Amino acid sequence: MPAIEHFWAVVPAGGTGTRLWPLSRSGRPKFLLDLTGQGRSMLQETVDRLAPLDDGRLLVVTGTAHREQVLAQLPEVPPDRILGEPSRRESMGAIGLAAALLERRDPEAVMGSFAADHAIRDTDELERAVRLAVDVAREGWLVTIGIEATAPSTAYGYIRQGSPLEGHEGAYVAEKFVEKPSAEVAQSYLAEGGFRWNASMFVVRPGVLLDLLAAERPAFAADLREIAASPDRFDEIWARLPRIAIDHAVAEPAAAAGRVAVVPADLGWNDVGDFDSLLSVLGGDALSVLGDPDQVLAGDTSGLVVPGSGRVVAVLGLDDIVVVDTSDAVLVTTRARAQEVKGLVDRLTEAGLEDLV
Amino acid sequence: MPAIEHFWAVVPAGGTGTRLWPLSRSGRPKFLLDLTGQGRSMLQETVDRLAPLDDGRLLVVTGTAHREQVLAQLPEVPPDRILGEPSRRESMGAIGLAAALLERRDPEAVMGSFAADHAIRDTDELERAVRLAVDVAREGWLVTIGIEATAPSTAYGYIRQGSPLEGHEGAYVAEKFVEKPSAEVAQSYLAEGGFRWNASMFVVRPGVLLDLLAAERPAFAADLREIAASPDRFDEIWARLPRIAIDHAVAEPAAAAGRVAVVPADLGWNDVGDFDSLLSVLGGDALSVLGDPDQVLAGDTSGLVVPGSGRVVAVLGLDDIVVVDTSDAVLVTTRARAQEVKGLVDRLTEAGLEDLV
Repeated sequence: MPAIEHFWAVVPAGGTGTRLWPLSRSGRPKFLLDLTGQGRSMLQETVDRLAPLDDGRLLVVTGTAHREQVLAQLPEVPPDRILGEPSRRESMGAIGLAAALLERRDPEAVMGSFAADHAIRDTDELERAVRLAVDVAREGWLVTIGIEATAPSTAYGYIRQGSPLEGHEGAYVAEKFVEKPSAEVAQSYLAEGGFRWNASMFVVRPGVLLDLLAAERPAFAADLREIAASPDRFDEIWARLPRIAIDHAVAEPAAAAGRVAVVPADLGWNDVGDFDSLLSVLGGDALSVLGDPDQVLAGDTSGLVVPGSGRVVAVLGLDDIVVVDTSDAVLVTTRARAQEVKGLVDRLTEAGLEDLV
Repeated sequence: MPAIEHFWAVVPAGGTGTRLWPLSRSGRPKFLLDLTGQGRSMLQETVDRLAPLDDGRLLVVTGTAHREQVLAQLPEVPPDRILGEPSRRESMGAIGLAAALLERRDPEAVMGSFAADHAIRDTDELERAVRLAVDVAREGWLVTIGIEATAPSTAYGYIRQGSPLEGHEGAYVAEKFVEKPSAEVAQSYLAEGGFRWNASMFVVRPGVLLDLLAAERPAFAADLREIAASPDRFDEIWARLPRIAIDHAVAEPAAAAGRVAVVPADLGWNDVGDFDSLLSVLGGDALSVLGDPDQVLAGDTSGLVVPGSGRVVAVLGLDDIVVVDTSDAVLVTTRARAQEVKGLVDRLTEAGLEDLV
């Protein structure tokens, strides 16, 4: 299949991935890491996966602190396609900036946003979903790819799928976005069916996105368009942009206004948010080793061992254990407590050990 | 109380302490380690503990490979009191060598052997037991200090206590030595009472010990006496000595012959054989840190953490865990599996990683 004409992939590369500490660090965030041991970082895998669709029409938006590392990891991407944010303005800033630039650059553009640090196993299904979403988006919809919910997760927001969209088999009106639910509510969503996980994969014409933003926050949309019109004012304007997620800024009000469509897709998606998720992605053996297996000496053990410092890591008699060895920190925890690693990182920061964070 | 006249402490300093890997190594065995965080090695603590009794009359017997380290740890001991074994000949060789030297040096000597890598909490009780044992030994007995058995351990041999020894309140005839028993047998010993753990603490006149050995193994005893008489033949004779524990070579047959006495003592003794034992010795908090507590970040965790490489060790949500971090190896296991660490070390050796052992 040929690439999609005028389709632009937008990859926001932000977020540290704190729950993957000590692998992920503020200076070497999750999207720069090879978390599958295949030799490609999550960012590289994201770009690789989209390449058949975008034919090189790609914008990466990342913090200026990480732009050099992103450039180094993506030598095939022209440097002016890798945008640096002087400060963090959450997903609306990053994706809105790309929208404003693309609106001027390509009047027929349809953009799709894809986080740089999520895993997707089924690229064929991704391609199918994106092609369909682009078709729908050309008609003026804000289209979200709704992840097939496979468990009653309380970690993600949900999209409620409405009536089918005429002329676009497999696409539906999105009735509403709902915030991360309680366990009971998540269970009822799964039982009821028709709810999809929201992974902020939005496919939309740049002008439509900015107009939807303008309906709620006219100054924000105007500022983004002004940056695109007057690049020399970038730093000045950027500094005053609000910090807000695109879900809140645009998707929720637009869904309420009947402007959002959803394309459900079973992508084998995983946000690799913590070591438990990472183990799901790695799958396979009872004991996953991310790194050189010769550096691991395990007996009667399951879980994840990451030998990352050159030392031998010996683990004996522990199930669902997580051991991560790096040159300046070692983490030992369990799959069940993987979410709480963030709290350890907070404690390091409080203890003044920022250089480990 | 003054020191005991003509009493010589003999400290065999051998054994790697394999189950304490990666803290203990063949090149830095357990007796050279500070395992309590008090700034003294087990060897130093052993020597310190005996000093009020021996008034400097001390012989340490260690492998030639470790002699320099022993000298460095015991600057107060004259170098000729630290004997080097060219090869390992087990406890009969080490203690027998000391006996042969002392027999020539001090006709009134009574010696007591004390392993360099055991912990004893109650030094007052040790002093009481040794003083009593020396009194008994002067009369020609081989006296063993029988450790008050506090659990049905299958890790130690036992001494069966017989009738009281007239004129020496607190001393008894030792009926027999029994090998490490099964769990059921150990339980019956504990229920029955009158069984003590054998920790190879022997108090005896050197000539008596050698004569007892000579009764079973005349060549062995003659060789040891020949070494003492002709020090220049040491290497030649040493090479042909058998490898046998003093328990088998002397204590068991001597007990059968009615020549052994036992002084029961509740020393707070622990052989610190593995990380589980070490935790018992460290006692105290649910989570013991051996090293700098500032290098440990723990949450909802009990057990032992040894930060030994300068790295931060973070442990979250694990009970009875053992985490040992060193500059070239990390161990993660549980108290319950602590005995099996030896198997890991065997695997390292088999894998050709002797430099880690």
